[in-house]
This record gives sequence, structure tokens and C-alpha cells, in this order.
Amino acid sequence: MSIAILGGTGPQGRGLALRLARAGTPVVIGSRDAGRARAAADELNARLENAAAIGGDDLRGAVAAADEMVILAVPYAAHDATLEAIRDLLPGKILVDIVVPLADGDPKRVDMPAAGSATEAAQALLGDAVPVVGALHNVSAVTLNDLDHPINCDVLVCGNDLAAKEKVIELVRRLDVAAYNAGPAVNARCIEAITPILIRLNISKKVPFTHAGLRIWAPGA
Amino acid sequence: MSIAILGGTGPQGRGLALRLARAGTPVVIGSRDAGRARAAADELNARLENAAAIGGDDLRGAVAAADEMVILAVPYAAHDATLEAIRDLLPGKILVDIVVPLADGDPKRVDMPAAGSATEAAQALLGDAVPVVGALHNVSAVTLNDLDHPINCDVLVCGNDLAAKEKVIELVRRLDVAAYNAGPAVNARCIEAITPILIRLNISKKVPFTHAGLRIWAPGA
Repeated sequence: MSIAILGGTGPQGRGLALRLARAGTPVVIGSRDAGRARAAADELNARLENAAAIGGDDLRGAVAAADEMVILAVPYAAHDATLEAIRDLLPGKILVDIVVPLADGDPKRVDMPAAGSATEAAQALLGDAVPVVGALHNVSAVTLNDLDHPINCDVLVCGNDLAAKEKVIELVRRLDVAAYNAGPAVNARCIEAITPILIRLNISKKVPFTHAGLRIWAPGA
Repeated sequence: MSIAILGGTGPQGRGLALRLARAGTPVVIGSRDAGRARAAADELNARLENAAAIGGDDLRGAVAAADEMVILAVPYAAHDATLEAIRDLLPGKILVDIVVPLADGDPKRVDMPAAGSATEAAQALLGDAVPVVGALHNVSAVTLNDLDHPINCDVLVCGNDLAAKEKVIELVRRLDVAAYNAGPAVNARCIEAITPILIRLNISKKVPFTHAGLRIWAPGA
């Protein structure tokens, strides 16, 4: 199974590509500029033992190379336009939306789209033929890129298609991370908005750590 | 310092009363029916070493007895009406809103008020003279009432008045719980909506625990 990561040249996309490739899942990074995508792939492969685990292509090439799942990891400003550019290639695949609608110029706030959340906006744009699953919003890019440490963040997965969610949960668990079905797409309004709260804590001088994650905490654990 | 807990005869209110009283903070439970409030107080005091730690009164009596903080722990359906009944007594005090706008008949969903969240609705209703702080939304009532175990949930505190938030954070920390300033009142839209996600996990047969909490997870912890 090969996974496309659109916006894979950004910090979140790079980190995810590294983690997935290291876990044995081939990745194709997609960027508007195929050359930049290939350069990022070369750089990331140099950090891995399997030097051909990550490929690079333009957006449409990366989507075409993906068997089953396309991860959308672009900045929020490019969210809709990126989907428009590839939507005809998506039917038959799952769109995994990890985009957080951070407010322009203030990462401590969300500026939610009219649809309610990025995940819901993607589902509305793509229609029923493409299941959209929201996931991986709350994982710090720094954490993803730091391969020497485990990921200190459980993953809340939401969407309206149960089978698609279960596939994404399985993918996330390959990264040695707990992943939970957190309900329908509407719950992305909450899950996406957790990220600026974590960013706020990371920035705060009163909190003794940065790169905070989120954990679902069982009693007695 | 004496704290009023309105809706203190419900499971969340009872558990909070127990925890606060045990930590040395006198509590007055407020209910529409003063007799029920006193009966609940007697019952709870019997579980504590200090048998006079919790008092009971009607809503207005409980608010009048509170020096500084009034905790609103009523069901969402009674949120606005309860505030209307006591609003003239609140100036000079902090209103701590722990209400989650769960959908009628479905605790796996929120049905947010037009103001965006219960905390924002309370702030709009009470006006600028009364600082409203949202807190303690995600702590399970069962956990609160189980005095043999620590509380497995960090507390996200939000509101527009920093000094009021800091007082609430200090109060919550008396319960041996980590509490964080999670930003302005608008963030209650996220924080309140975490609760139905936790309830969903608690109900799910695929999740091996109930009474899930939330933890802000530092790297390497």
C-alpha cells in the first residue's frame, strides 16, 4: 500500500512521511512543484534505512500513485484549492484530512470554515463518493520529525464512514500511537480546535514543556 | 473561602462537593429545593471526616453564602434559567461554568447554544460585571465520586478574565489535578465538546476502559 501525502514538503507532511516510511509504508510526497517534492523525498530518504521508501511527485502524480489513501497536509489557506486540483482522481480512495484551520497570523486560534471544520468542508467539497476522515490534527510536527522519540499524542479519528475510519485507525496504529474512533465528521469542530489550545500551552511560560500532546487517560493508568 | 455548587445534588455536583470538601474547602450545595440540598449535604458529609464541610441551601442562599466562587453544575436544560434566578447576587463573584451542552437524548453529541458554548452563553447573559470561567467539563462524575482513586483528567480552564481563571486554576489544583489556562471563552466550544467524545469512548465496546479522562502529555512523559 502506497500513501500520498499532499503538502508533504511542509513540516507536518515531512514528519508523517518519515514515520510512515520507517513503519514500512511506502509514501509519495505530493507538492505543486514536483521538483520540490522529489528534493524533499531525497532528503527524508537519507534519514531512513530504506532509501527508496519515499517518492516525490506533483499533486496529481502523488494521488495517482496512492492505492487507497491520500493524506491532505497543506496549510489551511491551500485546503480547498488543493482538493479542487485532485478531486477527479479521488473516487475509490480515502481522503485523510489533517489540516487545522489556524487563524491567519495567530496559531492560538482557529478560524473555522463555514462548513464547521476543515474535515466537514472537505467532505462537502468532495461529495459522497469520497470518504473523508479527519485525523492526526494534534500531533506536533516537531515530534513527528524527531525519530528518536515516540509520538506523545493519541490520535482522535473522525468521519462519517466507519470502514474508512477503521482503515485510518489501523494506519495510525502502525506508528505505535493509540488511535480512537472519535465519532462523526462534526466532531472535527472540536478535534481540530484542540491544536491551538496545545500550541497555546507550548508557548506559555507557565507550562514547563513544549510540544504537548493529548492522551486519552484510562482510570488508574 | 466557601464555594457554592449549584446543581450540587446531581452526580457531577456531588462529586465536586466531596472532592473540594475533602481538600479543605467548605462547600454549600445549592438546589431549587433547599430540603433536597440539605439531604444531599448530610449524605455527603457522612462520607467525610469533617462532618460539617458541606452545607445545603436553595440556589440564592447558596450563592449568598459563597465568598468568591459559584460553580454551575446543573443539567444544560437548566443552564440559563438557573443563571437568571441568581444573576443579581453574582457581581463580585466568579461564575465557574462546568455545564456541557449535551444533546437531548444523546450524550455522544453536543447541541451548542447560539452563543457558541455554555460558557459564552453564561458570559453573554451575565454581562461584564461577572467573570465567567469554563472548567471541569471533562472530568467523569463517577471518577469524582470515587474518593479512593485520583482524578484521571487534566482540567482545561477558559475564560476572558485572566485573574478569575488563575483563581479557578488554583482551586482545581487543590484536587491534585493539573489545570491549564486554555485561552479565552471561545475555546469552550472545543473544551465542552471533548466530553461527548470521551463519553463515546466510554460506551464503545472497542475501547477497553470506561470513565476516560484527558491528559496533556509532555514529550517523554
